[in-house]
Amino acid sequence: MHVAEYLFHRIRQAGVTCTFGIPGDFALPLYAAQEESGLKTIVMTHEPSVGYAADVYARFKGLGVALVTYGVGALNMVNAVAMAYAEESPVLVVSGAPEVRWQQADILFHHRVKSPDTQWHVYREVTAAQARITHAEYAVEQIDEVLDTIRRQSRPGYIEIARDLVFAPIKEPATTTRPAPPARNREALDEAVAEIVARLNNSQRPVVYAGVEIERFGLMDKLRQLVEKYNLPTATSLMGKTVLPEHHPNFIGNYFGNLGPENTRRYLENADCILALGMLLSDMDVGFEPSRIPRRRLIQATANGVSISHHHYPDINLVDVVDALLQSHAIKRFDIPTFPRPDAMPPKRAKTSALRMVTILEELNDFLTPSHVVLSDTGDCLFASVDLRAEWFIGPGYYASMGLAVPGAIGAQLARPDLRPVVLVGDGAFKMNGVELGTAKEQGLNPIVVLINNQTFATLKATDRDRAYFRVRPWDYVGIARSLGGYGEQVTTRAAFRAALHRAQACSDFYLIDAVVPEDDASPTLKRLGREYGGKIRMASRAGERP
Amino acid sequence: MHVAEYLFHRIRQAGVTCTFGIPGDFALPLYAAQEESGLKTIVMTHEPSVGYAADVYARFKGLGVALVTYGVGALNMVNAVAMAYAEESPVLVVSGAPEVRWQQADILFHHRVKSPDTQWHVYREVTAAQARITHAEYAVEQIDEVLDTIRRQSRPGYIEIARDLVFAPIKEPATTTRPAPPARNREALDEAVAEIVARLNNSQRPVVYAGVEIERFGLMDKLRQLVEKYNLPTATSLMGKTVLPEHHPNFIGNYFGNLGPENTRRYLENADCILALGMLLSDMDVGFEPSRIPRRRLIQATANGVSISHHHYPDINLVDVVDALLQSHAIKRFDIPTFPRPDAMPPKRAKTSALRMVTILEELNDFLTPSHVVLSDTGDCLFASVDLRAEWFIGPGYYASMGLAVPGAIGAQLARPDLRPVVLVGDGAFKMNGVELGTAKEQGLNPIVVLINNQTFATLKATDRDRAYFRVRPWDYVGIARSLGGYGEQVTTRAAFRAALHRAQACSDFYLIDAVVPEDDASPTLKRLGREYGGKIRMASRAGERP
Repeated sequence: MHVAEYLFHRIRQAGVTCTFGIPGDFALPLYAAQEESGLKTIVMTHEPSVGYAADVYARFKGLGVALVTYGVGALNMVNAVAMAYAEESPVLVVSGAPEVRWQQADILFHHRVKSPDTQWHVYREVTAAQARITHAEYAVEQIDEVLDTIRRQSRPGYIEIARDLVFAPIKEPATTTRPAPPARNREALDEAVAEIVARLNNSQRPVVYAGVEIERFGLMDKLRQLVEKYNLPTATSLMGKTVLPEHHPNFIGNYFGNLGPENTRRYLENADCILALGMLLSDMDVGFEPSRIPRRRLIQATANGVSISHHHYPDINLVDVVDALLQSHAIKRFDIPTFPRPDAMPPKRAKTSALRMVTILEELNDFLTPSHVVLSDTGDCLFASVDLRAEWFIGPGYYASMGLAVPGAIGAQLARPDLRPVVLVGDGAFKMNGVELGTAKEQGLNPIVVLINNQTFATLKATDRDRAYFRVRPWDYVGIARSLGGYGEQVTTRAAFRAALHRAQACSDFYLIDAVVPEDDASPTLKRLGREYGGKIRMASRAGERP
Repeated sequence: MHVAEYLFHRIRQAGVTCTFGIPGDFALPLYAAQEESGLKTIVMTHEPSVGYAADVYARFKGLGVALVTYGVGALNMVNAVAMAYAEESPVLVVSGAPEVRWQQADILFHHRVKSPDTQWHVYREVTAAQARITHAEYAVEQIDEVLDTIRRQSRPGYIEIARDLVFAPIKEPATTTRPAPPARNREALDEAVAEIVARLNNSQRPVVYAGVEIERFGLMDKLRQLVEKYNLPTATSLMGKTVLPEHHPNFIGNYFGNLGPENTRRYLENADCILALGMLLSDMDVGFEPSRIPRRRLIQATANGVSISHHHYPDINLVDVVDALLQSHAIKRFDIPTFPRPDAMPPKRAKTSALRMVTILEELNDFLTPSHVVLSDTGDCLFASVDLRAEWFIGPGYYASMGLAVPGAIGAQLARPDLRPVVLVGDGAFKMNGVELGTAKEQGLNPIVVLINNQTFATLKATDRDRAYFRVRPWDYVGIARSLGGYGEQVTTRAAFRAALHRAQACSDFYLIDAVVPEDDASPTLKRLGREYGGKIRMASRAGERP
C-alpha cells in the first residue's frame, strides 16, 4: 500500500464517492493515485468553486474533499475553506506539493510565495487540523489525525503531500477502522442534564432555538423526536434553517431578531427558558443584537461545550445533551395551546401581479416540495429566505460569503441525487462564478437557478444609500446559460415566473430564470434591515468625524 | 484630515487614478471616503480578478490598489496577492475591518474565521509589509511605512482599517512627501562595480540576461542605454520578456534553457560572463535546470543584493549597479560580429494553412505593433510566447497562476490607455474568469482576446499523458462574449484567424477570437517541454513505487 492509496481508502470509507478539484503539476501524482482508487474527480472551473462544491457535499455526506495543486490552487481556495471553518463544514483539503528535496533546498520553484512554508502557514489559519506529509512512515498517523479532527469538530482539515511521496510505500495498518472516541465525562453530563431538566420543568413557556450543528452532527432525527416528545415550540436560525423541517407542527419560524418574523421574535424573546441547541449565536443568529437573547434564560449546547446562564461545562457537548434529554424520563410534556405561526406560513398573498421579492417568495413557497433543496447565496435572497418554507435549505448564514450557491448546487446534487437543487442567487453573486453551471451540464446535473436581477448590491444599498459602485450592470444571463449548454428565460411578471418554475421543473438540464425586479425592490427582511440598522451603520462609520 | 483621506491622498500622490475592488459592509466607509477623495473605483466581478487587475496596473504605474472587504473579500484574493509577491508587483491591499471594539470583544461577527486576527495572519504570509489600523494616532506612520516598503521592494503591502476609524481625525503631517531613502554603501558598491568591470573587460563573449526587476524598478531605458553603450548581446527571461524591446538589434531572444530557442540557449550558456540583471533565476527562468547557468561565470544583480560567482554583496542592489555601469568610463565596447538571432525572428513560415499554435504565433508576429500590449495567461500560450516578438508583454512567468490575463487587461488598459491589450488565454484559464470581459465593456475598454481552444489542459497533458480530467469541455465562448456585450467569432483556419485579428483591431469593443486548434497541438516550446521533462516528471512522481 502507498501513501495516497491509504488516504483515498480512508476517504472512500467515509462514504465519499467523488472529489472536487482542478489538476496542476504538483498534484498530478495525487490525481493519478485517485484515479487508480476508483474515486471520481469533478473538475470545476475555478478553485473558489472547488471549495464551495466540496463544502456543500460535506454538509450532506459528513465529508467533502477538495483536491488541488500547490500555491496557485490551494491559495485560490482560502476563502471557501475559511467559510467551511466558520460554518463548521467537514471539508478535507488535499494539496500537492513540491518534492521533499525541493522544499528543503529552498529552491525558487514556480508557484512559490515567500518560502516553501507559506501555504502551510496560511492553511493553519483556516483549518482545524493540518498534516504535511514529508516522511512516508508517519503518513498513516497524520492522515488519521486530520480525518478524526474533521469528524470530531465538523471543520476543515488540510493534508499536503510532497509529490515524490504520493506513491511511497507504507506499512499497512493492521486495521483502518479507527478506535472509538474517548469516553465522555459522565459526571459532568449528569450534572448539566439535571440542571437543564430542572429548568425545563420549572418553565411555563420554553422554546428550542436550533442551529446548524444539529445537521452537522447528524442530529436532525433526534431533534424532531425531542421536540415531539416534550411538545416544544422550535425556532431555527437562518444558517440552520431546515434542521427542523419547516412544515413540522412545532416549527415556529426562523428567528432573526428584529429583522425576522415578529411572532417568532416575540415568542422566543419572551420564553422563560431558551434551549439553544447547536447554535453559535453569531451576530447573524441574533439579528445583529446579542442583547436580545438574555443569558439568564439561556441554555446553549454546542460541539464545544454547554453553557447555562453564566456558567459553562467544557467537557460535554451537544451530542451528549441531545441524547440525554431524549432518553430522559423526568421531563414533563408541555401543553402549550397554540404555537405562533411563522408570518409567512401560509403567507398573506401580496396584492400584486408584478414580480417582486415578496411575490417570488410566495411563488417559491407554492412551488417547493420535499424533493427540492434550496441553496441561497449571500445577498437579499439569503435574508428573504426567512420567509421561505423549505424542507432542505443551505445558505451561508454566518460567514456570508458570496459565491456558494451555484457551485454548491453541484456538490448538493452529487451528494443527494434524489434532490433537485433550487438556487437563489443575486446578479452580483452570479457574476462571480455562475458559469460553473457549465460544470453542472458536464456532470449531467440540472439545478434550477433563480437569478434575482435587481441590478444592484441590494444589501449594501439598504444599509448605506444608492451609490454608483453598488450598480450591477446586467448581462444577458439567459444567453450565458445557453452558451454553457443549458436553458433559460427572462421573466418580468409574477405569472411568467410561475410558468418558468414549472418549465424548469420539467427540464432535464439546468434552467436559469432571470427574474427581473426593480432596483429599489427588497425582501421584507431586507427592508427591515435597512430601517433598523441602515442609519446606525452609517452613523457608526462616520462617528470619527465628530470628535 | 481623517485616516482614509490621508491614505487616498498618498495613493493619488503615487500617480494612481483608480482602484479595483468589490464593496462589502465592512468596507463601506472606505468606499465612501474613496469617493470623496476623487479616486475612481473599478468594481470587478470576483476578488481574484480584483487582485490581478491591480497587479497589472501596478506593473505599469508603480502602484496598484485593491480595495476589498474583510474576510470574504480579502481572503478571496490571497492567491492573486501571492502572485504579486512572487513576481514583485507593487500592489497595495486595503481591507475594511470590523470596528475596534468588536475586534477586541471577540464577538462572533459575520465574515469571521478563527479569530479577528485570522486575516492579519494570512496576509503576513503573502505581503512584504502590513499595517492594522486600530488607533488613529499611529495611522500616518503605519500607512507611510507600508507604502515605502511596497516601493522599495516592489512587493505587495497590506493595510487593514477598522471601519470606525476610517473617518477618525488625524494630525496632518507637516509634509506628506517622504524623506529620501538612506544612503547606499558606497564602498561596497565601488568594490562590486570594480569587480564587475574587470570581469567584463576580461571577457571575450559576455551576455546580459535581463529579468523582470528591470521593469519593476523603472530601469528599461537605462538597460537599453547600457547594452547599446557597450554593445552587449542581451537575452531576456520569459517573465521579463520585453524589458528590452524585442526588435532591438542587441536582443538575442528569450532564454528558457533547453525549452527555448536553441541559438539563444547556446549563446548564453557558452558566454564567458553572464550579467544577470534583475533576474530571480527561478526554475522557470532557467528552463527548470539551474545547473545550466554556471555560478563561476555568473554576476547576478537584484533588488536584494549582488552576487558574483559564489560571493555576495548584500548592501547594494540592482539600481545602484545599473547606474554605476552605465556611468562607467572603464568598460570596453564589445565588437561582436554577429549576434545570434532568435529562431523566430523572422520566423520560418510553417507550411500549413491550418490553425495551429505555430501559425497563431506567426500571424501574431505579423499583426503586433508597438501599440499593443500582450498579456499571456498560464498554459501553452505562456510557453508559446517565447516565439512571440512583442514590444510590451506581461505573463506570470514565475508564479504561473492561471487567471491573470483577462482581468489583467483591464488593469493594463486603464494604466496605459495608449496601448491596446492583446490577451492570449487558454480555454481552461478563460473559464476561470473570462467573464470579466463584461467589466471591460462596462469601463469602455476593448481588449482583443485570443482564446486558444484546444479542449484540454495542454501543459499537464504534455508532462503526463492524456487523462479524462485534463479535458476542457468547450463552451460557446462567442455566445458568452456577445452575452457580455462584446463581439467575437470562432475561427478554424489560419486565414480566418488573420482576418479576425484585423476585424478585432477595427472594433471599438472587446473582441474575442475563439481559435480552435486540435487537441494534440502544442507550441514548439511545449513540445520540447514534453519531450525533455515529461518522462522525468512521470518517473520522479512514481519513484516511491520502486523502493
